[in-house]
Amino acid sequence: MANPVFPQAIIARKRDGHALGPDEIGSFVRGVVSGEWADYQTTALLMAIVLRGMTPEETTCLALTMMRSGLVADLGGVAGIKVDKHSTGGVGDKVSLILAPLAAACGVPVPMMSGRALGHTGGTLDKLEAIPGFRVGLSLSEYAAQLQRIGVAMIGQTAELVPADRKLYALRDASATVESLPLICASIMSKKLAEGIDALVLDVKFGRGAFLKEKVRARELAAAMVAIGRAMGKPTRALLTSMDQPLGRAVGNAVEVVESFEALKGRGPADLMEVTYALGVHMLLLARITASPAEARRRLEAALTEGRALAKFRQLIAAQGGDPRVIEDYARLPRAPVVRAVPAPATGYVVDVDPMAIARAALLLGAGRGNAAAPIDPAVGLADLKKTGEAVIAGDRLCTVHARDDSHFDAALATIGPAFEIGPKRSVPAPLIDEMIE
Amino acid sequence: MANPVFPQAIIARKRDGHALGPDEIGSFVRGVVSGEWADYQTTALLMAIVLRGMTPEETTCLALTMMRSGLVADLGGVAGIKVDKHSTGGVGDKVSLILAPLAAACGVPVPMMSGRALGHTGGTLDKLEAIPGFRVGLSLSEYAAQLQRIGVAMIGQTAELVPADRKLYALRDASATVESLPLICASIMSKKLAEGIDALVLDVKFGRGAFLKEKVRARELAAAMVAIGRAMGKPTRALLTSMDQPLGRAVGNAVEVVESFEALKGRGPADLMEVTYALGVHMLLLARITASPAEARRRLEAALTEGRALAKFRQLIAAQGGDPRVIEDYARLPRAPVVRAVPAPATGYVVDVDPMAIARAALLLGAGRGNAAAPIDPAVGLADLKKTGEAVIAGDRLCTVHARDDSHFDAALATIGPAFEIGPKRSVPAPLIDEMIE
Repeated sequence: MANPVFPQAIIARKRDGHALGPDEIGSFVRGVVSGEWADYQTTALLMAIVLRGMTPEETTCLALTMMRSGLVADLGGVAGIKVDKHSTGGVGDKVSLILAPLAAACGVPVPMMSGRALGHTGGTLDKLEAIPGFRVGLSLSEYAAQLQRIGVAMIGQTAELVPADRKLYALRDASATVESLPLICASIMSKKLAEGIDALVLDVKFGRGAFLKEKVRARELAAAMVAIGRAMGKPTRALLTSMDQPLGRAVGNAVEVVESFEALKGRGPADLMEVTYALGVHMLLLARITASPAEARRRLEAALTEGRALAKFRQLIAAQGGDPRVIEDYARLPRAPVVRAVPAPATGYVVDVDPMAIARAALLLGAGRGNAAAPIDPAVGLADLKKTGEAVIAGDRLCTVHARDDSHFDAALATIGPAFEIGPKRSVPAPLIDEMIE
Repeated sequence: MANPVFPQAIIARKRDGHALGPDEIGSFVRGVVSGEWADYQTTALLMAIVLRGMTPEETTCLALTMMRSGLVADLGGVAGIKVDKHSTGGVGDKVSLILAPLAAACGVPVPMMSGRALGHTGGTLDKLEAIPGFRVGLSLSEYAAQLQRIGVAMIGQTAELVPADRKLYALRDASATVESLPLICASIMSKKLAEGIDALVLDVKFGRGAFLKEKVRARELAAAMVAIGRAMGKPTRALLTSMDQPLGRAVGNAVEVVESFEALKGRGPADLMEVTYALGVHMLLLARITASPAEARRRLEAALTEGRALAKFRQLIAAQGGDPRVIEDYARLPRAPVVRAVPAPATGYVVDVDPMAIARAALLLGAGRGNAAAPIDPAVGLADLKKTGEAVIAGDRLCTVHARDDSHFDAALATIGPAFEIGPKRSVPAPLIDEMIE
C-alpha cells in the first residue's frame, strides 16, 4: 500500500470523506509551496475539498498551516492593539477607505493588507490607486514603520506572505474550485493572520449582491473564521450585513474615492455610514480604546465631525506617495470623458435596486476585471445612485454614468434601466446589520 | 460570464452535479489530447466525476469520444465476426491465455489487445512475455494480417489507439481518481471498441479478490459497458463471476503460463475451466458459430480434447516470435532459484483461501508491480494452491512458492500462512458464474 504521505493517499482520504489530520494538511501545504505536489494533484484534492467539505478543525489547521507557509509580519515594535477589518465584498463596498483612517484617528493602529479580487469593480488596492501617486507596494519594513509613525497603513500583499495562498488561489481560479467555504475561509484568515494583527473585525455579507447569497452560509463562514482567530489567540468578531442593494451611491474606483472623501466630510449616505460605524465600534472595543459600545460610537462620530478622520486619510495618502490635494480638488482624480445622467422613466418611489445589475454595468464600463490580467479603468463607474425608498419624478436623475465613450455608456444604460424598479408605494429596505458572531 | 466551452465552466457544471452534454465532453476529450486543458483542470474534472458520477448517456458519450480520440483499427479485411473477451481482473485470472486460442480453434476470429495493469501479478501481456521471444508489440497492420492468417492475435495497445485514455489513465493514477465506475467503464470500452471488434464478452468480477467488492457495483459496471457496446452496434454480453478465492492453482507469470498449457492439455482446474467455458460459449454464440449454447460448449470441449486449441496456441506463439518448444518443455520458461513447498499446519479441510493475501504474497515475491515503473520477475509466484473444499493432512503441500531467494520466500510465507483456513468440516465454495447481462 502507498505510504500515507504520498499525495495520492491524502487525496484518496478526502475523496472518501475522511477528515485530514495536521500531518496530512502539513504535507499538502508544504508540497504545494515546494512543488513536490504536482498541480494536477493539488486540484484533485481541492475539488475533493469542495465536494466533501472540511471540519472546523481541518479548516483551522489549513488556515494556520497556510499562514506559516511564508513570513508572518512582526508588528511587535508597534504600540497598541492592532486591529484590521476585512469584508467578504459587496457592490459599492468602500468601507475600508473610510474606516481605516477613522479608526486610526480614534487611536486604533490599523494594519490593513488588501487584495485585487476579480469582480465588478477593483479591490481596495485598485480604488486607492485611483489617487494619483498612491503606492500600495510597501515593503514589510516600510509597512511596520508607517504603522508606528501614523497609526495606519493600507498596502497590498507582499510576496513573502502566505505563498501557499497565491499558488492555491491561481489554481482554484482555473479549476472551478473557488466556491468552497473552508477554502475561502483558510485563504482569508491565513492572510489576515500573517499581516501581524492582534484582533480582527469581519464584515461577512449575504444577499443577492454578495458572494454568499444565503445568510445561513454567511453565518457558517463567519463562525469558521471567528474560530480560527480564536485558535490563534487573536480575538475576532464578525458582523453579518445585508447586501441586497448597492452600499452607498457610488460604484467604481475614483467615484468611490470621492464618496469616501464625502463621507469623511460628514456627507456620507446613511447606509454606508451605518455599516462603517457598526464595524468601527467593534474595532475600538477590540483595541480596548473603551469598553462601552456607546462611547466607541461617540468617539468615532467626534473624530469624523472634528475632521480628524479626514486629516488621518490626508496623512495616509501623503505617507504613501499620493497627492493629498485630491481631497479638496476631485478634478485631480481620473475623470471619464462621458459623464451623463440616467433619467427616471416614471414618477413614484424606488422600490428596488438590483445590486448585480449595477455591478454588471460597472464591469461593462471597465471599472472591474473579467479576468486576472485585465486592466482597470479608474475613471469609470456609477455615481449619485438613487436608493430604495427614495421618491423620483419622471426625468429625474436615477444615477450618473461615468463612461469612456458613448458606446460604453449605451451598453451600461441597457443594464441600468432594468436594475431600478419604480412603484407607487414607498418601501423600506431591510435592516443592514443582521447579527454579530464572536 | 465565462464562455461555456472554457474548462472552468465545464468543471463547474460537473462540480454542481449537472450532466455534461456531448459538446462539453467533446471539448474536454479534445482538450486533454491537444493540451488545451491543463492537467490541473483535467484532474479537477476527474475528481468531480468521481464524486458526482455520470449518467449512462454521459458515460457512453465519454467512451465513444475517447475511442475517437485516435485511430480505430480497421479489421474489415478479416472474415468472420470478430469477438474479444475482457476481464476486470482477479487473482490467478489467466483465462485469456486459454480462451483466445480455444475460441480461435472453434473458428472465432479473436483480436485481443491487453494492458499491463498495476497489481499483484502482471497483466496478460506480462504473462505472455514470460514465454521466451514472445512479442506483444505488433503494429496495427501486423495485427490485422496475423488475425487474417491464423485467426488470433494477442498484443499490447498501440500508440495510435485511444491517446485520451493513456493521458487520462496516467493522471488518474497520480490523483486518486481511478475509483470511478464511469471512468473505468469509458476507459475499458474506448479501448475495446478501438481494437476493431464486432462483439465483446465481458468477465466482470466481484468479491473480495476483485476490484469491485460488491455484486451490485459489478452489475452496474457490466450494465454500463453493455449499454456502450449496444450504442456502437457491437453486441456485448457480460458475465458476473465470483472472485472470492484465487482462480486455478497458480498466481504469477510463468507459473500461470504453465497452468494455461496444462489446461489446454486437458488438465485444467475445475474452477478455471468453468469460467473459461462459460465465457467461450458466449464468444461462439456472438460469432454465430452456432445458436445453441450446448452445441457451443461441445465444440469448445472438442477443440480442447482433440488438441486443436493447444495447436492454435502453438501457432500463435510462433507467429509472435515466441519459442513454441516451451509447451512441451516448461524448463525453457524463466525458473526461480528457490522452489519450495508450504506445508499444511493441521489436518482437515481447506475452508477458505483469502485471495488478497495470496495476491500480496505474489506481489512480495516480485510477480507484480507496486508502481508503473517497477520491473516484473516472470519466474516467481505461487503454484499448486490447495482449493477450498479439499482435504489436507498436516505436513501436506498447501502450495509451492517460486522465489528469487530465501528472504523473499520467508516474506511470502508470512503472508501465505494466514491466507489458508483449515477446519474440520468440508465447505463448498459459492457458485462461480452468477448472472449474464446483455
